[in-house]
Amino acid sequence: MTRPIVFLTDYGLDDEFVGVCHGVIARIAPDARVIDLSHGIPPQDVLRGALVLAAALPFMPEDAVYLAVVDPGVGGPRGAIAVQTAHGPLLVGPDNGLLSLAWQELGGPETAVEITAPDVLLEPVSATFHGRDVFAPAAAHLANVADLRDLGPEVAVDDLQHVHLPAPDITDGELAAVILGVDRFGNLQLNARPDDLAEAGLEGLQRLRLRHAGGTSEITPARTFDDVPPGELALIEDSAGFLAVAANRGSAARLLGISAGMQLVLSS
Amino acid sequence: MTRPIVFLTDYGLDDEFVGVCHGVIARIAPDARVIDLSHGIPPQDVLRGALVLAAALPFMPEDAVYLAVVDPGVGGPRGAIAVQTAHGPLLVGPDNGLLSLAWQELGGPETAVEITAPDVLLEPVSATFHGRDVFAPAAAHLANVADLRDLGPEVAVDDLQHVHLPAPDITDGELAAVILGVDRFGNLQLNARPDDLAEAGLEGLQRLRLRHAGGTSEITPARTFDDVPPGELALIEDSAGFLAVAANRGSAARLLGISAGMQLVLSS
Amino acid sequence: MTRPIVFLTDYGLDDEFVGVCHGVIARIAPDARVIDLSHGIPPQDVLRGALVLAAALPFMPEDAVYLAVVDPGVGGPRGAIAVQTAHGPLLVGPDNGLLSLAWQELGGPETAVEITAPDVLLEPVSATFHGRDVFAPAAAHLANVADLRDLGPEVAVDDLQHVHLPAPDITDGELAAVILGVDRFGNLQLNARPDDLAEAGLEGLQRLRLRHAGGTSEITPARTFDDVPPGELALIEDSAGFLAVAANRGSAARLLGISAGMQLVLSS
Repeated sequence: MTRPIVFLTDYGLDDEFVGVCHGVIARIAPDARVIDLSHGIPPQDVLRGALVLAAALPFMPEDAVYLAVVDPGVGGPRGAIAVQTAHGPLLVGPDNGLLSLAWQELGGPETAVEITAPDVLLEPVSATFHGRDVFAPAAAHLANVADLRDLGPEVAVDDLQHVHLPAPDITDGELAAVILGVDRFGNLQLNARPDDLAEAGLEGLQRLRLRHAGGTSEITPARTFDDVPPGELALIEDSAGFLAVAANRGSAARLLGISAGMQLVLSS
Repeated sequence: MTRPIVFLTDYGLDDEFVGVCHGVIARIAPDARVIDLSHGIPPQDVLRGALVLAAALPFMPEDAVYLAVVDPGVGGPRGAIAVQTAHGPLLVGPDNGLLSLAWQELGGPETAVEITAPDVLLEPVSATFHGRDVFAPAAAHLANVADLRDLGPEVAVDDLQHVHLPAPDITDGELAAVILGVDRFGNLQLNARPDDLAEAGLEGLQRLRLRHAGGTSEITPARTFDDVPPGELALIEDSAGFLAVAANRGSAARLLGISAGMQLVLSS
Repeated sequence: MTRPIVFLTDYGLDDEFVGVCHGVIARIAPDARVIDLSHGIPPQDVLRGALVLAAALPFMPEDAVYLAVVDPGVGGPRGAIAVQTAHGPLLVGPDNGLLSLAWQELGGPETAVEITAPDVLLEPVSATFHGRDVFAPAAAHLANVADLRDLGPEVAVDDLQHVHLPAPDITDGELAAVILGVDRFGNLQLNARPDDLAEAGLEGLQRLRLRHAGGTSEITPARTFDDVPPGELALIEDSAGFLAVAANRGSAARLLGISAGMQLVLSS
């Protein structure tokens, strides 16, 4: 039996980094299926990587080994860890919070080890490409059903790093949110969920006001893009459960001229 | 036996949409080989998706299940279908014409069903990501050699939607064509084939005139780029059988400053 | 037994070229694992393709068949070759030097053939897409452990084309290098190695001067990005063994406003 590997990075696909990691995996675990979840995480955006990884969990094989690398501190003092979660899946990546939203969804970290075993690392370990020299080999050994403790010494799970999703700012009648990301279709994902809209007293309205850097727009709460006329704005629940601003048959990002990290305010 | 899945979308690879669908497939059909034909169809360009899918058929495994998602109407009233073609391959996607050029090449649709079976859909079905919740699971079940009718009730094949490739405008001595697409190398694919050039009486000439938005250029009918000097324009038959405007060791798109959807006129 | 195929091109992933080649491989060698090393080689940049291929060799499966296509002369007189290397791996691609840095690392070419066998080629062979019609089928047959000579007649290995990596210009106290490539993180890979720095008498210094098209900067020789303060320049050895100019938590390319092909001069 070989476990499938789910692979997420900020490496992009213009360079060979992802392909080289695939080679490393194929040398160690030639029968492992590798699922490329995404390599388009914005460079060094640990929070975005953590969010995408956690949202994908329900759709991945149940016995998966997750290999995630968004690693601005590569070569520095941050640890390289492998984590056994309470629900079964294994997580491999840098100890910078990237894996933390995933283990929260998976019952918490049960055991964690620092990846240091000489017969796991590709020596000499480079200073800049731990995806190749540390993380991919570790994930491949775990796909081969190696024992977690074969990778290195145990570390206290209480010492592991976490990321925190910024909460939206909710007052009576207003919901202030931040744009977490923009997808290919120009949909703007917010750090808010339908419940937050209800808490702000904005649920069930036919029409909302949307203030943003470019001005003020009207937006229609809807189930899907197609519920508003082409070119108009819809406030929907996206496929990860977040509120999102979308334009039917168009790009909300282009229409409003705004991008990830900017603030939006919804009101009646 | 598991059938291979050929997968085409307009999702791009910057986001995780393609990877999530791969996870869904791996959960249902862990042994299915997935061939990513293209995820770079321009967003919501159903005609382009239909053309790319149909042109690829002769080069794909004969027992393939085709999973195609270019779906501007997601969440709206358009149907979600699976189609058995006369020649054997199966097609899965939205009923918006995306699959229609493929089934024309495959002997026509023999049977079609609406994908509604509760044990196929991932419930709750999202309003915006039917690739994940409807189409990928349907294709995975078919890869596992499920019966088409297990996916849902039959629909009349005569009611299925079609796309139509716009025909070139041919007069004696002139061929007016539209640019269907531009590839990475800047080659311009036209909605015309070598036969159309013959019908316009422009076959066998050493040199043609090319009128376009940026002016008028000379172009040399050729077998390949390399038959003209570097930087010059060649009119070739591309690998899908269409006429294409190419520049040897350069980009015709950049040279002429034109892009998909624009018109070109060839004359003597 | 089926050998894995390592696949590198300049096709990009916006078009369907890579996916079509995957289909061709799956028809001929349905059990072959395909590792997409990179499809982001800059269009027609044979030297860059040769460098990426050679640097990846130690990380790929030992019995791999390498399928590499960066082919500005497609359809012209350049040959299509398959090469048995002394160390075992097989190489398939155009005879334009693309494979030459790889076979140098693999003990040299032992045998080479011209790919012409009618039952290997997909007839009619297109003038512009030999990846599909010539190279992918050849690699797939070799993955199926076909004899090299089944692909076509032997050619003299002494007649094969080579690329040459430009050497850096070293004088006492100065190292003049060219930027070979820029990765997604904005790191600038130079045509120089740590030994060249020593030869220029610049080893062991705390600080170097960096002259470039945009002016003069200070740069710190370091083991990794993280050894310099955020936003500052580090001169590191990259994961392929070349010197590279990097900015900690930033993009050296953006910081300096320079790109591939430009010259840099390091001095004390």
